[in-house]
Amino acid sequence: MTAEKKWVYMFEEGDATMRDLLGGKGAGLAEMANIGLPVPPGFIITTEACLAYYEAGEKFPPGMWGQTLSALKVVEERSGKRFGDPKNPLLVSVRSGSKFSMPGMMQTVLNLGLTDETIKGLIELTGNERFAYDAYRRLVQMFGHVVLEIEARRFESVLERVKEDKGYEVDTDLTTEDLKAITEEFKKVIEEEKGFPFPQDPHEQLRLATAAVFRSWNIKRAVDYREFHKIPHDLGTAANVVTMVFGNMGFDSGTGVAFTRNPASGEKELYGEYLLSAQGEDVVAGIRTPKPISQLKEEMPEIYAQFAEICERLERHYRDVQDVEFTIERGKLWMLQTRTGKRTARAAVKIAVDMVKEGIISKEEAVQRIEPSQIDLLLHPAFDDKAKLQALEDGRFLAKGLNASPGAAVGVAAFDADTAQEWGTAGRPVILVRPETNPDDVHGMLQAQGILTQHGGATSHAAVVARGLGKPCVAGCEAISIDLEAKTFSANEKVVREGDYISLDGGTGEVFIGQIVRVEPKWEKEKELQTLLSWADEFRRLGVWANADYPRDAQRAREFGAEGIGLCRTEHMFFEEERRPIVVKMVMADDEEERKALLDQLLPFQREDFEGLFEVMDGLPVIIRLIDPPMHEFLAPREEVLEEVTRLRCTGQDPQRLAEKEKLLRVVESMWEVNPMLGLRGCRAGIMYPGLTEMQVRAIFQAACRKAKEGIEVHPEVMIPLVGHVNELKVEREKLEKVAKDVMAEEGIEVDYKFGTMIEIPRAALTADEIAKYAEFFSFGTNDLTQMTYGVSRDDAEGKFLLQYVERGILPENPFQVLDREGVGQLMRVTVERGRSTRPDLEIGICGEHGGDPSSIEFCHQLGLNYVSCSPFRVPIARLAAAQAALEEVERDK
Amino acid sequence: MTAEKKWVYMFEEGDATMRDLLGGKGAGLAEMANIGLPVPPGFIITTEACLAYYEAGEKFPPGMWGQTLSALKVVEERSGKRFGDPKNPLLVSVRSGSKFSMPGMMQTVLNLGLTDETIKGLIELTGNERFAYDAYRRLVQMFGHVVLEIEARRFESVLERVKEDKGYEVDTDLTTEDLKAITEEFKKVIEEEKGFPFPQDPHEQLRLATAAVFRSWNIKRAVDYREFHKIPHDLGTAANVVTMVFGNMGFDSGTGVAFTRNPASGEKELYGEYLLSAQGEDVVAGIRTPKPISQLKEEMPEIYAQFAEICERLERHYRDVQDVEFTIERGKLWMLQTRTGKRTARAAVKIAVDMVKEGIISKEEAVQRIEPSQIDLLLHPAFDDKAKLQALEDGRFLAKGLNASPGAAVGVAAFDADTAQEWGTAGRPVILVRPETNPDDVHGMLQAQGILTQHGGATSHAAVVARGLGKPCVAGCEAISIDLEAKTFSANEKVVREGDYISLDGGTGEVFIGQIVRVEPKWEKEKELQTLLSWADEFRRLGVWANADYPRDAQRAREFGAEGIGLCRTEHMFFEEERRPIVVKMVMADDEEERKALLDQLLPFQREDFEGLFEVMDGLPVIIRLIDPPMHEFLAPREEVLEEVTRLRCTGQDPQRLAEKEKLLRVVESMWEVNPMLGLRGCRAGIMYPGLTEMQVRAIFQAACRKAKEGIEVHPEVMIPLVGHVNELKVEREKLEKVAKDVMAEEGIEVDYKFGTMIEIPRAALTADEIAKYAEFFSFGTNDLTQMTYGVSRDDAEGKFLLQYVERGILPENPFQVLDREGVGQLMRVTVERGRSTRPDLEIGICGEHGGDPSSIEFCHQLGLNYVSCSPFRVPIARLAAAQAALEEVERDK
Repeated sequence: MTAEKKWVYMFEEGDATMRDLLGGKGAGLAEMANIGLPVPPGFIITTEACLAYYEAGEKFPPGMWGQTLSALKVVEERSGKRFGDPKNPLLVSVRSGSKFSMPGMMQTVLNLGLTDETIKGLIELTGNERFAYDAYRRLVQMFGHVVLEIEARRFESVLERVKEDKGYEVDTDLTTEDLKAITEEFKKVIEEEKGFPFPQDPHEQLRLATAAVFRSWNIKRAVDYREFHKIPHDLGTAANVVTMVFGNMGFDSGTGVAFTRNPASGEKELYGEYLLSAQGEDVVAGIRTPKPISQLKEEMPEIYAQFAEICERLERHYRDVQDVEFTIERGKLWMLQTRTGKRTARAAVKIAVDMVKEGIISKEEAVQRIEPSQIDLLLHPAFDDKAKLQALEDGRFLAKGLNASPGAAVGVAAFDADTAQEWGTAGRPVILVRPETNPDDVHGMLQAQGILTQHGGATSHAAVVARGLGKPCVAGCEAISIDLEAKTFSANEKVVREGDYISLDGGTGEVFIGQIVRVEPKWEKEKELQTLLSWADEFRRLGVWANADYPRDAQRAREFGAEGIGLCRTEHMFFEEERRPIVVKMVMADDEEERKALLDQLLPFQREDFEGLFEVMDGLPVIIRLIDPPMHEFLAPREEVLEEVTRLRCTGQDPQRLAEKEKLLRVVESMWEVNPMLGLRGCRAGIMYPGLTEMQVRAIFQAACRKAKEGIEVHPEVMIPLVGHVNELKVEREKLEKVAKDVMAEEGIEVDYKFGTMIEIPRAALTADEIAKYAEFFSFGTNDLTQMTYGVSRDDAEGKFLLQYVERGILPENPFQVLDREGVGQLMRVTVERGRSTRPDLEIGICGEHGGDPSSIEFCHQLGLNYVSCSPFRVPIARLAAAQAALEEVERDK
Repeated sequence: MTAEKKWVYMFEEGDATMRDLLGGKGAGLAEMANIGLPVPPGFIITTEACLAYYEAGEKFPPGMWGQTLSALKVVEERSGKRFGDPKNPLLVSVRSGSKFSMPGMMQTVLNLGLTDETIKGLIELTGNERFAYDAYRRLVQMFGHVVLEIEARRFESVLERVKEDKGYEVDTDLTTEDLKAITEEFKKVIEEEKGFPFPQDPHEQLRLATAAVFRSWNIKRAVDYREFHKIPHDLGTAANVVTMVFGNMGFDSGTGVAFTRNPASGEKELYGEYLLSAQGEDVVAGIRTPKPISQLKEEMPEIYAQFAEICERLERHYRDVQDVEFTIERGKLWMLQTRTGKRTARAAVKIAVDMVKEGIISKEEAVQRIEPSQIDLLLHPAFDDKAKLQALEDGRFLAKGLNASPGAAVGVAAFDADTAQEWGTAGRPVILVRPETNPDDVHGMLQAQGILTQHGGATSHAAVVARGLGKPCVAGCEAISIDLEAKTFSANEKVVREGDYISLDGGTGEVFIGQIVRVEPKWEKEKELQTLLSWADEFRRLGVWANADYPRDAQRAREFGAEGIGLCRTEHMFFEEERRPIVVKMVMADDEEERKALLDQLLPFQREDFEGLFEVMDGLPVIIRLIDPPMHEFLAPREEVLEEVTRLRCTGQDPQRLAEKEKLLRVVESMWEVNPMLGLRGCRAGIMYPGLTEMQVRAIFQAACRKAKEGIEVHPEVMIPLVGHVNELKVEREKLEKVAKDVMAEEGIEVDYKFGTMIEIPRAALTADEIAKYAEFFSFGTNDLTQMTYGVSRDDAEGKFLLQYVERGILPENPFQVLDREGVGQLMRVTVERGRSTRPDLEIGICGEHGGDPSSIEFCHQLGLNYVSCSPFRVPIARLAAAQAALEEVERDK
């Protein structure tokens, strides 16, 4: 006979490290028991037992039940009570608990051990008949529904009928006799539905309840939750068998929940609520208003002192904020749960910084403890607290739905995707309101500020797509009622019409009528964040630069800690009001001379732009990318011109305008491209339009030289885009180096400068050794590199199939948000290796959108890039993510 | 003192292998001298001397002149004459000759050694005063122009004046006295221009002429020629010093050129022309009509017999057809040059096959000797010989220009690129006629059947672009005169108006008015080619398959030797007349059910297509690619619909049609893509349009099963296009495998089949190991792979910058014609390695256009692909190229 596998652990046999085997709740109870905290006696049936239960076709594995009975014996000894003892009955709960928290998804059964016999003992012990019958009523109801899987409705309707018959308002109006009668009726329901009576054997109750907890691992909502949160399905749940303690045994009893620090602000103070003479569910039900935990100090000073000391111990023990549940039974404190406390972004930062100061954790731990994306919330506009409060007071609250995708959005309601798209592209802020969304709505979602749906949960189409797009979304907001015909929705006795403003908070699920002011975050006030990031800077190896086209953006980036400009897009400057007409003429120029004259007119504007940048970035490098988009982007769209020409031809009223527009149409059509992304743009335009990039480089060097003469330290880096073959870079660089030298000679001053290129075409990556011969720096343009490597045009794909691919699991992630390490990443690795093989000191960075994505930043760190460059608002995130990547590497290498 | 470098080789000291050092002409003379053929005494000053001459700043290297004088002594001894001897003068020529033939590009000086003194000896020896003065006149003129670099015009005007004064028609009317006077005048020109007299020292003449030959290596036309033909600039030319022999010493003298076999037909017969009592230039000048070489047999039977025997020896010696020059001086035959004879494609094949049969060369050599692209000419339409002859007789010949890009083109004349583009896209065959072309004309060239220019040579824009596009071009046709205003051109007293038909033969440079019938080649008549290819098949390892969409193409491919269909594009079938309306409805369908019904209507058509293919390809594999283009390609173009809607809105006359067209416009706009190449197409469409690819696979398997039941051996291979991520292939394949199995069950027969994918997205190449898990075969779509790897849209790029890149040397080649081994090739190599690491028996082929390009085929062989698939007409080329790749490998491995 082989040794029997151990399926059951007394609390004292486990600890906090055994989450896999005992689940999170069980490991917490075990740890608390071990460090001597008052935990009701109990034991854990392991997750392995659950898995074995499934493997055996929903049968307990051999030995498990025997071990359970033995453990129960130990509990009986410790509590001095006995399971099924009509005099001194032991009551237990069976609670689910898996490795990862899945709040409310699985089942729990309370008050097991009560029978027609043992209830007498309970009445005797508590002297409270009503309490005892209420407990029995709850057991039978819960057992019937959860364990025996009878529809909840069958029990609820009994309760409702009795209340209606008696004219009661709330459950607490029920008398002992009512409860007795109801319990009897519940038993009948069970007998009717199942053909057998409610089990009067406590062991049978426990056996069935344990199986029910195991089965609850695979109920639909639990499976869906795991799907969504990417939790594996093969973990199983433990079953925690805990001696019942009751907080509703009078005013020397009570129950409560607390955080060891304030989870909203991060302040070091106990934060929570309690109710005397109450059970856990009373706190939740909201019938009685719970009191703040601080009041317990006055009501029960000794208990409070004990509780505060336990909290302090738990925090130091776990080295993190804890979220605990407790019950006081007749003047004795019992701890029922401890787990890491969830907190707001602001609190997370403050707690981490404070804990370092308190000597609880190291700086490294503090830096590693903050999810970089959390910082985003501190830096982006949110609803102004007061404005939101005012909106509540003004009665502008409409409804609360599921907080499906965070962020604050304000816009006018639109009830179909076409309207949302139309208004959105016209620059009008829109909230798309739909009963639910489907792939046909994506074009509208793309143009909306936020999305509100009536139906569907956290994994609904709307929620998934909105999160994918990073747009605020309130989903499954069943409290609203939409009339698509009338283009209105109503909620909270208000009606919202198409075009009316609404505001939604995707982080809380709240929806308001009208506009709520949003506030810009104040960086200078974020002292703790600045401290944390200064620690991050000590650990990171990657530089953090920013993408900025204008001095104001550069200024903000610098405040946020950017160490250079990784991408200044010069074409944005071409679109500005006073310049656009010159640019249009330049593009349409009939001959070189005319074009040259127009370029000369643009030169001073460009120089001015660059002067501002150099000034702000005094002492730091500034990478300026030469013009990138195809020239026809500066002209009116083909369809627009065609439409006007057709109309003018048709009316025949304005022959002069017609002639003009016909000329324009000819030019636009001759320049038109089937696939402009892969057409005459980037360095190709520089090569084919003489004078264009020369003008830009002239402007850069004039600006740099003049600022240098004013005493500013300038480091211009000229970036040539869209190189596919080394010769493109070679001819452009030769031409432009000459301009740079000429200008420096004219200005009589030398400045430090570099020439380099984007790596954004797969071929450039593959031939990086060749290209590095003519480039002093590389910058990954991972947007285009992803488009070409994946063969996907982002403009076309996201709405038409890419997000649906993610939803259907065909792609793990949107590769435009999270860098595709498997494909694009290979090309990046090759680029770094080959580029540095030619030029060991090659400066390599990334300036695509991925430069601000934590996972992508980690990969850039692993590749050994010099820096990441991202939008100014993401600079703090990048600093943190870069530090975490470095620290993870240190840990891996240990 | 170190040993002096050897700068000068007597003919006897060299041989045929020394082309690098002695140049092609020198090596040929040396080889002939060594095997005992009658070659006039002479020697070669090496190419190294030429290079040293340049290195020393245009000075002879030390020792060279001394060695030259010593060699001259030997020649004097052998000839029994002496340089500068007034009694018995030795005359020599100095001829250029580099490693690679550069016909007419460099300089030659004849009759060196004639002076006022030695001419007396020449008169004495020949008894022909006029002959001697004519020789002297030629020397002074040639020396003045070539050696002393005086404008040719200065001498020609003297000649013209004398002829005019005397009323002469041609040079031969000049008397001895005239020639004497002219020679004196030429000397005066020299003295006037240079300030020194024509050198009377023969050694000085030789010294200066040798330097002039060296310098001619770097004259502009020679440099341009090398640029164009990619001949390195650092080879230098040799100077061949050869004793003069004269064919114009009476009717026992003569001169001629001959091929050892007929270079047009390949027949084994001497082929050439000669003139008695004539010099080489008389044959060229066309004043007297040369006689066919066969007539020499009657006129000089002994000389002919000697010559025929020499030709036979040379051919066997060189193991190839020779192109020789000879002179007969007073009954003695002298061989002046031998080189490999150029020949037509037809002759090349016949000669190679014949020589194998004659035991001169091996089959391997025969296969390696034919340039695969030559075969193309045998398989493509050409002008019908009789029709062309008739056109000549009818006086329809217009002009002859430079044969800049081969092929026969017929079309209407257009005088600007816009018209050419407009007519061309409308399906009207056009020849673009321009004074010259520039990049602004490329859009017209793209749509033209052929190009004709008045100016510009073999390296002009028109010529380069036309060759790049594979279109016939006659360039530099100065005999035509273009009037762009009137849109006409005239030539040979005829006027061609815009819209008139012309025909041009880019292989000969001829231009005709009207249409000339073109003939399809007759494969069954090409017996020698078939023999050659059957040998090629013995050597090649690569399979050769064909791209064919229709049974008729498959039939032709099979005749040409295709071993399978590598690509059947199913979308072509969607465009056919009776199907298009169903396809349009299907694309616009409002719901799944409607779409499903329309797909059901398409099914029988598709099945029929495939039945035909399977029948033709009985026993061979047929790869059918599922639908690839975006669905909106089946609808009317956006601009067309927009124009109509705008017009209908403007007139307001037909509200019903307007409503229809507005609906269409909405659909077209909603489906419109910025970059359709990277949009919703390929497997993405299969995934997003339920039922579409299922219908296709159903049709394939119904066809296969039904044909199999008729006893035909079918091997369908289903190809899923545009896979970028393995999961795309996984979900499509799972779905389609089910259809395949269902159909086979329904039809009650199993057929052999495969599922596989295109590799045409860089990411697919990079993750080929993953993709191979779900693919039984790969097929490289190198068109798209090149587009994405290079980041270049072929439709946009070729006209707008790609061809200009090639022209400017930024790219070595158009990567859409010749596979880019450096970039795209890397991805292919990775694909093969990783794909086979997962699935060692993975079948890998190529079906992009490169599959028919010899250089790309060589690369495919090196990569170890299973087959190349190309258009039916290129199958023979591919068979040959594949064999050559295999044979080269054998040689490399030796």
